[in-house]
Amino acid sequence: MGMTPTIAWQGDIDGRLELIDQTRLPAELCVLRLERVDDVIDAIRRLAVRGAPAIGVAAGYAIVLGVRERVPTDATTFRRACSEVAARVAAARPTAINLGWACGRLARRGEREPTLGALLAEARAIHAEDVALCRAMGENGAPLIPDRATVLTHCNTGRLATAGDGTALAVVFEAWRRGNRLRVIADETRPLLQGARLTAWELAAEGIPVDVATDGAAPALIARGEVDIVLVGADRIAANGDAANKIGTYALALACREHGVPMYVVAPSSSFDLSLPDGAHIPIEDRAADEVLTLGGQRIAPPAGVGARNPAFDVTPGRLLGGLVTDRGVIRPVTTENVKRVLG
Amino acid sequence: MGMTPTIAWQGDIDGRLELIDQTRLPAELCVLRLERVDDVIDAIRRLAVRGAPAIGVAAGYAIVLGVRERVPTDATTFRRACSEVAARVAAARPTAINLGWACGRLARRGEREPTLGALLAEARAIHAEDVALCRAMGENGAPLIPDRATVLTHCNTGRLATAGDGTALAVVFEAWRRGNRLRVIADETRPLLQGARLTAWELAAEGIPVDVATDGAAPALIARGEVDIVLVGADRIAANGDAANKIGTYALALACREHGVPMYVVAPSSSFDLSLPDGAHIPIEDRAADEVLTLGGQRIAPPAGVGARNPAFDVTPGRLLGGLVTDRGVIRPVTTENVKRVLG
Repeated sequence: MGMTPTIAWQGDIDGRLELIDQTRLPAELCVLRLERVDDVIDAIRRLAVRGAPAIGVAAGYAIVLGVRERVPTDATTFRRACSEVAARVAAARPTAINLGWACGRLARRGEREPTLGALLAEARAIHAEDVALCRAMGENGAPLIPDRATVLTHCNTGRLATAGDGTALAVVFEAWRRGNRLRVIADETRPLLQGARLTAWELAAEGIPVDVATDGAAPALIARGEVDIVLVGADRIAANGDAANKIGTYALALACREHGVPMYVVAPSSSFDLSLPDGAHIPIEDRAADEVLTLGGQRIAPPAGVGARNPAFDVTPGRLLGGLVTDRGVIRPVTTENVKRVLG
Repeated sequence: MGMTPTIAWQGDIDGRLELIDQTRLPAELCVLRLERVDDVIDAIRRLAVRGAPAIGVAAGYAIVLGVRERVPTDATTFRRACSEVAARVAAARPTAINLGWACGRLARRGEREPTLGALLAEARAIHAEDVALCRAMGENGAPLIPDRATVLTHCNTGRLATAGDGTALAVVFEAWRRGNRLRVIADETRPLLQGARLTAWELAAEGIPVDVATDGAAPALIARGEVDIVLVGADRIAANGDAANKIGTYALALACREHGVPMYVVAPSSSFDLSLPDGAHIPIEDRAADEVLTLGGQRIAPPAGVGARNPAFDVTPGRLLGGLVTDRGVIRPVTTENVKRVLG
């Protein structure tokens, strides 16, 4: 696991972006070598790279590639190329705020300093910061997990979702390193099974005990007292702490409140969108019906007369959460005032 | 759909049991022809036949086959065979009360009237009654669905789950026949995808608009106001109305309460177990890890170091339900007194 990075830039400004193709895990570990912005956009869209922080890091490098392709010959054409490429990359997926945030950073840097070297430096800065943010989240969150706890998590929020140790899983890894003999229940996370495929893979690689469960089983396991804490990530968090995360997260929050189990969202400060007052304003991506109607290329549903609903995210009200774990500290209780106090 | 019955007995006391193999739908429509009790028990265990009422009907015929195999030569050996076979069939799966209920009926009939003809008559009576119960549930429930409503349902509760029109789906079919231009969202129902495979198939065959959604999406769709009513079945209902049903049902109840959407459990009187005061006493089947870790024979999860939790059912407290729709009427509000009044 530690050997192949999720995201890497190879070389200097004439280099290329390398991404683990997460759609093929755990059956195959394949690294995509991308030299064109369209290929990175495609990788983002089809979830070859995924997880809000990792998407942000990939977006930075994608803009380097996109501007390079345009071969701008002077500062004016460079600036135009940079702003156009940044806008295209930002539109690849709608929900993760980190995507637009990273594109904005690259666009501003290119405006100020219109050279490929400067863009690459900015992309590398985002990358390095993400590693540091993950470490800080892990350290801030680890004390929240009771010793020998069963932690339930959803989707994948680990080394594959970020450039570092992850968000919610960074907390698990850090607690484990500190000697907490915890165990994990990983929601499989339909439709794309990031929990069963990716979270289980990351945890098993570290020797952390992990059981996969169907998404529908989690509320029953919570009701039966088999879960001590729920840790999840977020793709965008509004000013009041409402958090958009992978579809299926909201059900966990309702079950946790009903049964007095604490649930924390773990996300870097870059995942907050303080321009949105609450979660109702977060754009939610609806993805293709085929993700639901097929599995691994196999058709599940009848061949005709059947549609699908496939919202990729849901919104969990901040008031249902025990807190928000960020790189800057733990926000709790979750209120607009406390979000502003910690992040403002 | 109307052509191939889910369950049929072919012939007289020398006949055989025919079951649609539901594990192969919708890709293939295969009919199992079973002449040995062990083959029926295997079909029940591996969910070739499933749905509490259908399991009850199949169990009746299974006992006919099992006693016939033993070739009892006098009333004493017949009675012993009947009671032993009934006990074996009853143990095939633990949660659906209809299984034990049907086996009890056959055992008592065999005790009273130790002939194969009497056993077959009893099995046929259960079969015919199930058709009538489905019709009554459909009629009692249909008025609950607002015109042009979006109905969300879980698992499969239709013609494949019963000998008749179904339980929750019988209500949908009856409302549709009465001209209600409803539409249905079918939870795919992991791990075995009875919603995506079977419910979608039954509804599409009738021309009823149906969208499949992942189990984790349902609470978000309820929160977004896209669901008008939730109708589900039950495998066993305690005296206070707590209902065990396919894993994932409980999350729907929590979301429905949170957002003021009515949720009804639809089940025949034979699914009630008045000997249990509440849902905590209902035995819950834990099934094999492979159902979660693989799909259609394909491994989803990493090959090693990963376990699974696979409870097949969860319990929804009766107090979260808008009501219980039975063949004898609608029980609401759901209280021990009202259950007793309608069923007692």
